[in-house]
Amino acid sequence: MKAPTTSQSSSSNNDTGDHSNDLDSDPIFHLRSRTAAAGTLQRPQIQYESLDYDVCENKLFHAEQRKRLRDRFSLRIHVIRWIIFILIGIITALNACFVNIVIDLLSEQKYKFLKASVEQNVPVNGGDGDLALPYLWWLLLSVVPVAVGATMVTYIEPITAGSGIPQVKCYLNGVKVPRIVRIKTMAVKTIGVITTVVGGLAGGKEGPMIHAGAVVAAGISQGKSTTFVKDFRIFKAFRDDHEKRDFVLGGGAAGVAAAFGAPIGGMLFSLEEAASFWNQNLIWRTLIASIISSFTLNIVLSAYKGLENFTFTGLFNLGKFKEPLTFAYFELPIFMLFGVAGGLLGATWNALNTLINKVRRRFVPWKLGKVAEAVVISIIGVTLATIMIYFIDDCRPLDKERISYPVQLFCEDNEYNAVAALWFQTPEATVRALFHDEEGAHNIRTVGYFTLVYYFLACATFGLNVSLGVFIPTALVGAAWGRLVAMQFLDWFPDAHFLNPGKYALIGAAAHLGGVLRMTISLSVILMETTGAETSFFFPLIIALISAKWVGDYFNEGIYDMVIEESHAPILPWEPVPQYKGLTALEILSKPVVCIKLRDSAHYIYEVLLRCDHNGFPVVDDVKDNRRCEGRVCGIILRSQLIVILLKSLYVENKRFWLPETSIQTFREVYPRYPSIKSVRPLDRKENYTVDLSMFMNPSPVRVNNHDSVPKIFNIFRALGLRHMLVISNENRIAGIITRRDFIYK
Amino acid sequence: MKAPTTSQSSSSNNDTGDHSNDLDSDPIFHLRSRTAAAGTLQRPQIQYESLDYDVCENKLFHAEQRKRLRDRFSLRIHVIRWIIFILIGIITALNACFVNIVIDLLSEQKYKFLKASVEQNVPVNGGDGDLALPYLWWLLLSVVPVAVGATMVTYIEPITAGSGIPQVKCYLNGVKVPRIVRIKTMAVKTIGVITTVVGGLAGGKEGPMIHAGAVVAAGISQGKSTTFVKDFRIFKAFRDDHEKRDFVLGGGAAGVAAAFGAPIGGMLFSLEEAASFWNQNLIWRTLIASIISSFTLNIVLSAYKGLENFTFTGLFNLGKFKEPLTFAYFELPIFMLFGVAGGLLGATWNALNTLINKVRRRFVPWKLGKVAEAVVISIIGVTLATIMIYFIDDCRPLDKERISYPVQLFCEDNEYNAVAALWFQTPEATVRALFHDEEGAHNIRTVGYFTLVYYFLACATFGLNVSLGVFIPTALVGAAWGRLVAMQFLDWFPDAHFLNPGKYALIGAAAHLGGVLRMTISLSVILMETTGAETSFFFPLIIALISAKWVGDYFNEGIYDMVIEESHAPILPWEPVPQYKGLTALEILSKPVVCIKLRDSAHYIYEVLLRCDHNGFPVVDDVKDNRRCEGRVCGIILRSQLIVILLKSLYVENKRFWLPETSIQTFREVYPRYPSIKSVRPLDRKENYTVDLSMFMNPSPVRVNNHDSVPKIFNIFRALGLRHMLVISNENRIAGIITRRDFIYK
Repeated sequence: MKAPTTSQSSSSNNDTGDHSNDLDSDPIFHLRSRTAAAGTLQRPQIQYESLDYDVCENKLFHAEQRKRLRDRFSLRIHVIRWIIFILIGIITALNACFVNIVIDLLSEQKYKFLKASVEQNVPVNGGDGDLALPYLWWLLLSVVPVAVGATMVTYIEPITAGSGIPQVKCYLNGVKVPRIVRIKTMAVKTIGVITTVVGGLAGGKEGPMIHAGAVVAAGISQGKSTTFVKDFRIFKAFRDDHEKRDFVLGGGAAGVAAAFGAPIGGMLFSLEEAASFWNQNLIWRTLIASIISSFTLNIVLSAYKGLENFTFTGLFNLGKFKEPLTFAYFELPIFMLFGVAGGLLGATWNALNTLINKVRRRFVPWKLGKVAEAVVISIIGVTLATIMIYFIDDCRPLDKERISYPVQLFCEDNEYNAVAALWFQTPEATVRALFHDEEGAHNIRTVGYFTLVYYFLACATFGLNVSLGVFIPTALVGAAWGRLVAMQFLDWFPDAHFLNPGKYALIGAAAHLGGVLRMTISLSVILMETTGAETSFFFPLIIALISAKWVGDYFNEGIYDMVIEESHAPILPWEPVPQYKGLTALEILSKPVVCIKLRDSAHYIYEVLLRCDHNGFPVVDDVKDNRRCEGRVCGIILRSQLIVILLKSLYVENKRFWLPETSIQTFREVYPRYPSIKSVRPLDRKENYTVDLSMFMNPSPVRVNNHDSVPKIFNIFRALGLRHMLVISNENRIAGIITRRDFIYK
Repeated sequence: MKAPTTSQSSSSNNDTGDHSNDLDSDPIFHLRSRTAAAGTLQRPQIQYESLDYDVCENKLFHAEQRKRLRDRFSLRIHVIRWIIFILIGIITALNACFVNIVIDLLSEQKYKFLKASVEQNVPVNGGDGDLALPYLWWLLLSVVPVAVGATMVTYIEPITAGSGIPQVKCYLNGVKVPRIVRIKTMAVKTIGVITTVVGGLAGGKEGPMIHAGAVVAAGISQGKSTTFVKDFRIFKAFRDDHEKRDFVLGGGAAGVAAAFGAPIGGMLFSLEEAASFWNQNLIWRTLIASIISSFTLNIVLSAYKGLENFTFTGLFNLGKFKEPLTFAYFELPIFMLFGVAGGLLGATWNALNTLINKVRRRFVPWKLGKVAEAVVISIIGVTLATIMIYFIDDCRPLDKERISYPVQLFCEDNEYNAVAALWFQTPEATVRALFHDEEGAHNIRTVGYFTLVYYFLACATFGLNVSLGVFIPTALVGAAWGRLVAMQFLDWFPDAHFLNPGKYALIGAAAHLGGVLRMTISLSVILMETTGAETSFFFPLIIALISAKWVGDYFNEGIYDMVIEESHAPILPWEPVPQYKGLTALEILSKPVVCIKLRDSAHYIYEVLLRCDHNGFPVVDDVKDNRRCEGRVCGIILRSQLIVILLKSLYVENKRFWLPETSIQTFREVYPRYPSIKSVRPLDRKENYTVDLSMFMNPSPVRVNNHDSVPKIFNIFRALGLRHMLVISNENRIAGIITRRDFIYK
């Protein structure tokens, strides 16, 4: 029943006595227990800082506000904001187009070559050929791209591993994930996902596209790039965490829209999964970004595929169902059972995947090993596929329109090998096949083995050090077992015409997705938009998804949340957890707090910054005997602001020079990567410069009373998106400080 | 640049001197300027109180929490909450079914009778008949139901006038609209809407259904009814404003789902228009309520209409398009122009309607006049329709399947009068006709006159003292002009095959709805779900809607917001208005504040309650010289709690008796209609009972500093759904109080 920080908050309480001998020159403070002194061991959490959603309304801010009121600035800001959202939509879509087209072209070359190789080595008409050479070619064409991708990810930018959605989710929750929204990250991710998908690993390109959308949004809205060390000097007004987070939200939605061609789905995805803070205008802008994004994607892809009339029929990534999907009431329990199965399979998958990744982290910590691992999984995949193709004898009459790369292999003329057809294409194309192939296009045994192999393959793949998403493999496994069940029952009851295998493949995909990802509303809308299903089919989809989610939630969390948990990011839940009940602020706060006086010596500030790495310092006045940590609260100041103050020498003694020159721009210029305290020239102890913080500090930090209950202050912290929350006594004296990490309950 | 309250806050500042002569016995307080002393003139706003979204976490609450932790209460609460949401969905749908079926049956009787009357009086085959008698019958059959409906609304429950959506919106924003969620209100509204629609007024049944959903939600979740003075003694744990508001949100969504057969639309409606506070679990429950609601509606209506196999094909209220709607890129500018036209027409409509209603309120204040007015509008409608039918000669070949009540009138055999066909049905059926009739089914002149008449008729109707919604007439006008434009252009350019009149009727309806209601996302989803349109057609709809909204927003607000503004309800905007810029809490707060000491005399409390009608009183200690208004804040207590304390004599002197008996249930029992202070027996002045508030008060009210900026405190107020916000000085002494009304800027 104790929050995690209490165990740490007992330190350095014993040096309260030796205050009065040092007067204003030497830093006198207690280390807040939670945060290590600078230079000591970095714990896993320490890499995550919070974003600052709370606007610092200091005097400089008000001065700028007054200026803006005069020159109709606020209308201009609005228009620019809209333009940025539109740009985000367009550029995200163009990136998605690039990924799509390159993957298309490379996959085409790869599978054409493999088909030719098979045909060359296995003589047509029942000859007793050998698959050894095609197998080796296949291995080569899979291992090389995978190795390239894994090397890039491992050595250039490790943050690009995986889908990217967990990281974006953390970011939108308010956790600053380092390097997550850089252009370099996006470049590595884009190439990484292309190589991975072309290499044939069990992964999709959707997650990385969503991540790319977020990067685009962060990049454009800031008008500068850290990777290229280039500042375009535009959009300066948007350089704070608050604005940036809104843009990233739009970027995520645009990414979903581009990945699936699902604008409403994109908006709902942002809403359901990502956004912590929400209002009507934000919904609006997010929707516009998604619409623009899916529209751009559509135009470009239509042009690429040579459709002349540009008739907008939607971009059905997973193929449009030829006939409207209908269902009868008695099927509802079946959908529910599918959901339950999806929940069980999904929960197992999540648990297994987490276990595999734990083992992986423990036994393969070195970099080369991680690349080798990806290569091994790739080899296993190709080998299993080859074994299936070799040993399962499943020949089907050839239908040239449907199968991209039909391989005759050991089949008769005008037949093709159905097993090879499942493997000789991207996973996305396989999902399409499972949804839309007519009854009897597949063999129960083939699909059965395929499901089994792919389930474990996907499980071993997600978590490798490569860029890839989990959506498509999950949908693929779900579609496979959904279709399998329908085929099996149709085999037993040939009169049950409602058992349309395509329909049940879709339901299976929904159930399995629900079981693994635990999203419901946005997933069902995405599935509807991406298959062009009727709005009435929303009902079966949501039934399957909800059943899956409920069953799955009984066992564990969604895969994204499990990844986040493994990364120890201090993500805040939606609602206060039950363990908070009965606790008060006093029991979770960190104290004593390192405070700074309203007018304090520059030297003290310098020493504080050097000796502890907190990011926010309460500003106090009415300090007796230099005991700052018992002062009366009058504001809060951030580490970054203090560094700027020291760097620019904004001392009281220099006052007559800096007043007209200083504005909020001085602080904004260095956002978001503030220089470290080490870049400040050490101050001579004898120069007794003074800093007056009244102009720079945030004079209205959120304060709560030390007896307020934790569920209540959690709600405030969550709703306002805070970084620091000051706990005060009844006399408005500082009692402690609460940050994101104090709420994390293990 | 001054907030409205500052003009009022200067009063009674001059009596600060005469404090010290009264000691603890006589009430010594300043009237907070904003609120009148009890018994004085009631200003229009005074009828609105705020809801209390902030949970009062006093000691009794914590005692209950501890009890709940022990007996696994919280799981039970969760399950019950889900059950209530499901019940809300079912009952809302049943109510909607009742309304639908009764309107269907009565309209059928009415129009059958009228058709027979026309056929009797106008001899078939070109005879020169007379429409006088049918006209009189029509008048009678319209005026009687309208008069009944208007009488009920006016004399029994005036709050039921109009659509109900503005009131629900206010409620969800946190404004307590009196009598809005009572069963009596729902009964009057249900009968009112049936009579109005059967009477043929230009109104729809959708708005009232949404309102009904909200009432159902409030009623069920509280397990008691004020109308029937019946307490079922269930669901007691949900008796607070916080829980009730969540349920009402679900009820609104269920209402939309039932009215339009649009579950996603329902959820999005709640999200876009109504909800002020939002989290993932609430999205969930809301969605479930909508799904259950549309599902129930579907089953019941399928059974009623005698569909045997219950094949779920969706409930397309506005008819499913036979062929998938497609569009080409060059049509996008056309959709945009439609949107612009819709925005202009909608803004004009809103302005005109508001003007009419202002005139109406000014010149027809008495009740009988309001009923007469409804009758007059009804007569005008019937008369205009008869004139159109009589003078426009528009005969069409008969197609029995399509036209419900074909009237031959002056036409040839096997022909019918197309004008009469437009009028001889409910508005909803006319919308269906405009959407789905094939090319050439209508005459340009007929539709033109019809559009014109209906535009102004609808404008005069909305605002009458009858229960009816604005959605259907708006959609009807939009569909009419949309179809008209397409017909006209098809006449000029017969080769432009893309000009499908049904499609453009849908776009027109969307544009006009966007112009009048200014909702975008939920409306487009509702239109898609209710017409079974393809997901890809979302794009044209949203383009039309967004253009309409942008154009319309340039001139005025949406009709619901205008109605709310006219009602002077203190609704909070989504974001801080620009006028707040530069203001601090000091400039908008109300002071001096009537405070109560932590241990205060019962007599003082009684006098305070009697003499002023504030709803929240800061609790202070460290009071010097009895100057409570300068005390140190330690909590806040509500008027209702104080009344309960006095009623139950919870005095310190009685302490040994009441401690085990008192729990949070004592306070919850009387929710939500607390007795007035008048029901408390006046206390004898000599009995000096003391009340100790430490157990009852909310010890953690939200406090802000008196120099905090108004945009910032607005965000806190809005995000946390507060009722009272205490403004404190740096020494934690009370400086003022801010309520919802202090933020309203005129």
